[in-house]
Amino acid sequence: MDTAVLSTGLNTIWVVLTAAMILLMEGGFALLEAGFVRQKNAVSIIMKVFVDITFGALVFYFLGFGLMYGKDAGGLIGWSGFLLRGDLSHIQLDISHETYWLFQCAFVIAVISIVSGAVAERIHFKAYILYAVAMTGLIYPIAGHWVWGVGGWLGKLGMIDFAGSAVIHALGGFAALAAAIFIGPRIGKFTPDGKSNIVPPSNLPLASVGAFILWFGWFGFNSGSTLSATNGSIGHIAVTTMLSAAAGGAGCILFTMFRYQKADPPMVINGSLAGLVGITAGCSFVSDGAAMLIGVVCGVAMVLVTELLEGKGVDDPVGAFAVHGVSGSLGTLAVGLFAMPSLTKGVGQEYAGLFYGGGWQLLGVQALGLAVVCVWGFGLTWLSFLLIKRIMPVRVSKDEELIGLDVGIHGVPAYNQDHDFLDVERLTPRND
Amino acid sequence: MDTAVLSTGLNTIWVVLTAAMILLMEGGFALLEAGFVRQKNAVSIIMKVFVDITFGALVFYFLGFGLMYGKDAGGLIGWSGFLLRGDLSHIQLDISHETYWLFQCAFVIAVISIVSGAVAERIHFKAYILYAVAMTGLIYPIAGHWVWGVGGWLGKLGMIDFAGSAVIHALGGFAALAAAIFIGPRIGKFTPDGKSNIVPPSNLPLASVGAFILWFGWFGFNSGSTLSATNGSIGHIAVTTMLSAAAGGAGCILFTMFRYQKADPPMVINGSLAGLVGITAGCSFVSDGAAMLIGVVCGVAMVLVTELLEGKGVDDPVGAFAVHGVSGSLGTLAVGLFAMPSLTKGVGQEYAGLFYGGGWQLLGVQALGLAVVCVWGFGLTWLSFLLIKRIMPVRVSKDEELIGLDVGIHGVPAYNQDHDFLDVERLTPRND
Amino acid sequence: MDTAVLSTGLNTIWVVLTAAMILLMEGGFALLEAGFVRQKNAVSIIMKVFVDITFGALVFYFLGFGLMYGKDAGGLIGWSGFLLRGDLSHIQLDISHETYWLFQCAFVIAVISIVSGAVAERIHFKAYILYAVAMTGLIYPIAGHWVWGVGGWLGKLGMIDFAGSAVIHALGGFAALAAAIFIGPRIGKFTPDGKSNIVPPSNLPLASVGAFILWFGWFGFNSGSTLSATNGSIGHIAVTTMLSAAAGGAGCILFTMFRYQKADPPMVINGSLAGLVGITAGCSFVSDGAAMLIGVVCGVAMVLVTELLEGKGVDDPVGAFAVHGVSGSLGTLAVGLFAMPSLTKGVGQEYAGLFYGGGWQLLGVQALGLAVVCVWGFGLTWLSFLLIKRIMPVRVSKDEELIGLDVGIHGVPAYNQDHDFLDVERLTPRND
Repeated sequence: MDTAVLSTGLNTIWVVLTAAMILLMEGGFALLEAGFVRQKNAVSIIMKVFVDITFGALVFYFLGFGLMYGKDAGGLIGWSGFLLRGDLSHIQLDISHETYWLFQCAFVIAVISIVSGAVAERIHFKAYILYAVAMTGLIYPIAGHWVWGVGGWLGKLGMIDFAGSAVIHALGGFAALAAAIFIGPRIGKFTPDGKSNIVPPSNLPLASVGAFILWFGWFGFNSGSTLSATNGSIGHIAVTTMLSAAAGGAGCILFTMFRYQKADPPMVINGSLAGLVGITAGCSFVSDGAAMLIGVVCGVAMVLVTELLEGKGVDDPVGAFAVHGVSGSLGTLAVGLFAMPSLTKGVGQEYAGLFYGGGWQLLGVQALGLAVVCVWGFGLTWLSFLLIKRIMPVRVSKDEELIGLDVGIHGVPAYNQDHDFLDVERLTPRND
Repeated sequence: MDTAVLSTGLNTIWVVLTAAMILLMEGGFALLEAGFVRQKNAVSIIMKVFVDITFGALVFYFLGFGLMYGKDAGGLIGWSGFLLRGDLSHIQLDISHETYWLFQCAFVIAVISIVSGAVAERIHFKAYILYAVAMTGLIYPIAGHWVWGVGGWLGKLGMIDFAGSAVIHALGGFAALAAAIFIGPRIGKFTPDGKSNIVPPSNLPLASVGAFILWFGWFGFNSGSTLSATNGSIGHIAVTTMLSAAAGGAGCILFTMFRYQKADPPMVINGSLAGLVGITAGCSFVSDGAAMLIGVVCGVAMVLVTELLEGKGVDDPVGAFAVHGVSGSLGTLAVGLFAMPSLTKGVGQEYAGLFYGGGWQLLGVQALGLAVVCVWGFGLTWLSFLLIKRIMPVRVSKDEELIGLDVGIHGVPAYNQDHDFLDVERLTPRND
Repeated sequence: MDTAVLSTGLNTIWVVLTAAMILLMEGGFALLEAGFVRQKNAVSIIMKVFVDITFGALVFYFLGFGLMYGKDAGGLIGWSGFLLRGDLSHIQLDISHETYWLFQCAFVIAVISIVSGAVAERIHFKAYILYAVAMTGLIYPIAGHWVWGVGGWLGKLGMIDFAGSAVIHALGGFAALAAAIFIGPRIGKFTPDGKSNIVPPSNLPLASVGAFILWFGWFGFNSGSTLSATNGSIGHIAVTTMLSAAAGGAGCILFTMFRYQKADPPMVINGSLAGLVGITAGCSFVSDGAAMLIGVVCGVAMVLVTELLEGKGVDDPVGAFAVHGVSGSLGTLAVGLFAMPSLTKGVGQEYAGLFYGGGWQLLGVQALGLAVVCVWGFGLTWLSFLLIKRIMPVRVSKDEELIGLDVGIHGVPAYNQDHDFLDVERLTPRND
């Protein structure tokens, strides 16, 4: 058999399998978020994840992919590849354009799922659909083009972001922050004198297993981003991913034992995720030791930022900003510090971080790119919600929020453990 | 290294990994079904899934595989390969017969799991075991031979069913319908005047995550059905699978918002699955656009058929027929409409659907094959239960049904959140 | 493209993907254990799994890997490869040392997770961390070196343990037994007159899905242990794994129906796992028939040993010893009975079990190695807890145990389904 055929087959199954792993992360997001919110909103948050994976995939097929990976126009935008048609000859890979689309589709769905957690328990479902369309069709694809598109201006400046600490997580996290501020805190989350109430997670076992599924998917996320099974970095990427996650989780176990005199389960869950987010940009470029350092710094920063947001009156129910926004930013900058020339060869050009003789050059580009992406994510999200607000309410009514979105919006509770039959007819019209 | 060795290794890990993904779908079925039924029956439905995966695998090893994939006898049945022995030289693949068996074993377990949902909350456990043996040992293998076995008469007529919309899902769905009708509705599901009561799903977060796990497994189901990692269709298959599922889910979000004035979570869950079922026959043969059309049609049809069954007094607790029977049928017929010659080359022969210049030929064969498979699945299931009823009750007693099968049959409740110790001794004999 | 590059790529993705599957097993352990324990301890047991995967990975990186797979010293210990540095030239594989580390890291995390279940609901969290460090840094790596390290004395004697029935499961299971005896039974588990109370599993759907995830991961565990995608045994390994698990589960369904007059869900869950544990040593070396026999024997033995331990006053909340210790031992010995020369070629030397003309030689070596590993696991665990007890309490206070470790130690309940806000401040200091 021809080795070219073997090579294409090998690369194709690698990308399809890792894409499937990333898509399984939606199950992880669903569990994590349903476990962290109150039970009266557990289904409503999962319905948002269904919006992410269904509308997200379709919008990215029709619009987003073309804007992100289409033929470059001025470094600012792509303009071909809508419905996978038109000239995509600039994408030179040993996999088909369809296979490539699937992998990128899994990414865009992850981005919008980051935001879903920050607006949990209070956003109006229809408004969320509109925002999801904006994010997956415009906001993420355009910023993504700048960094990852062939000819994108940030990429040309030399910004590197292997699997998306900036493009996926910092953008998603800052969008989540904007959305959380725009929509305001949940009723009762903050007392009139500014004190924060603890909203108990409804189901920590589910949230934990969500984290393990996300961890599993992350091996697809990071290692699969090679898009080639013969890339010599795959093993290294998987190891730095593992070590950073472990350091983030272990760091949060020890740090919360020190700070709160007990290992705090939600913080440990989010600490592991913070380590995973932080290493995403540099998994291929930094050493094992740097990976562990990134993990532990991201884990501890996540705890501190969570506290800070609570103190500032910002209500982010699942910690989307603290996990994705903060660790994504730290991870992007860390590449500017720890990138090793020997490990960056695969990118086609050698890069060196500040600690490896590269001076301030790479760090500066990373910081610039990060700032651009974060401002874009925050600003366009704010703008989107401003526009949506003109045509419909962004937030549910007070009554719906108090009774919970599951019954209030979707007409069915998440858990029915006491009744053989519902008192209300589920499938009858309601007005909203 | 020899490229033949590489090729075999590549194909082997592809099939083993995708088979494992399909087998993980049993975890998805367990979650989906346990989440949809009432909590008093949540363990009993999972025990049926354990029957599926354990008895199913063993019966298929000893009997079913030989009948399905053994040496053909008259186009009607296979007759070798029991215990993986005897002449299997007609199976010409670049993977071992054992590897092939594992993949097909994952399929048969999926078929029987489709039926398990339709008889939930009322079937007798021992009767279910007997039926599972009949399904995995005889009913599915014989029909499967007709379509997929080398020399099977429907396959020779030209019926194509890439990954099993007909063979797996329509057969399983019509068997589920027969079983649901035979065993009758749950106590209290329908009022004496024929009105339907809503049985609330006990745990929608679990059901949702079940759907995400099934979605993940479906990439193994469809893409893995190439049985070869160098098949050029893998990327296309994965993309049509993704798009159809997304269209099914998004279609149900919009359609239920229109029809019920709210996005209905159980319908959205089943809508995504309907899209997956619908594309299973044609994933390799139809365009992206056709895939989305198939998905949305299957999603909407699932909602309408669910309502229809409720109106007809048929009680199918998890919507097995509406999801698998209906979408499986639509998907099988869709191949006759949308199959593209350029995409069917891989099958060894070019096929064209009605809309691609093939005339009524393919559509007719698909319709004939579908009808045969559905009648077979329905009829043999009915017959099986008639025979089983002669030797034991098919349905639990009224008392057992009212208290729930978990405590009534298995002696332990699914959820114990209030007691440190059980009042009853779990591991002592009971009479039944 | 060069076939050597293709081969390395193929082997690398095989090992990375299967390692990720094994790591997902931590999600399976978390579900299984959280489902089996009482709800007041459901988070605390998951926090232990987080300790396993985070501290376990880091300790194995710094210490354990070097002791296990480093350059051999006298057959007793490895001494290089700490932090993946130093001379590892004796490890001759077609994957990088980093990739190899990841796979082995997934194994060590599984070992410690076995113990976590046996000490559930009563161990002190800090003491558990110390024990986890001892297990992943010293106890498992040293015993592992004897069997699997290049130059290890048991391996040189001819002991074979393909994927770890002895090294992983028997060692972990006997360590679990030691820990369970050392720490004593849960308050109220046994009445003063020695009668055993049934502690009801809090969430059997979660436990069941944990088992399905573990089953999925086991295909990575066993098939991935080839460390090479071109190993001709992969298909056979996957099939024996499937058949043994099915036989273990089906055996427990029938056996508990016979013994208790009902199919007992927790026993069926553990029966499938017993089949998986039992086949782990011989998956590559025994026939399909032997695999089924091993599965059913392990399943039934698990039931009987569970009863025995209850009768002896040993409290092992999730059945860690009955599943892992017993089946691991049986599986290790079964290799001495059923190893087929034709299947063992891949190991570099032909082995034959007692029933295949090999006489008592192999069985004797297996028995010796098993005894050594079990005594080591039991003894070193006992010693570790003796040492830990000198510096801190091994067991929580009576008050903490009665209120549950979730609130008592971690300050947050696993499930909060009734309250919008917590009465207590979650993130404030407590003294312990």
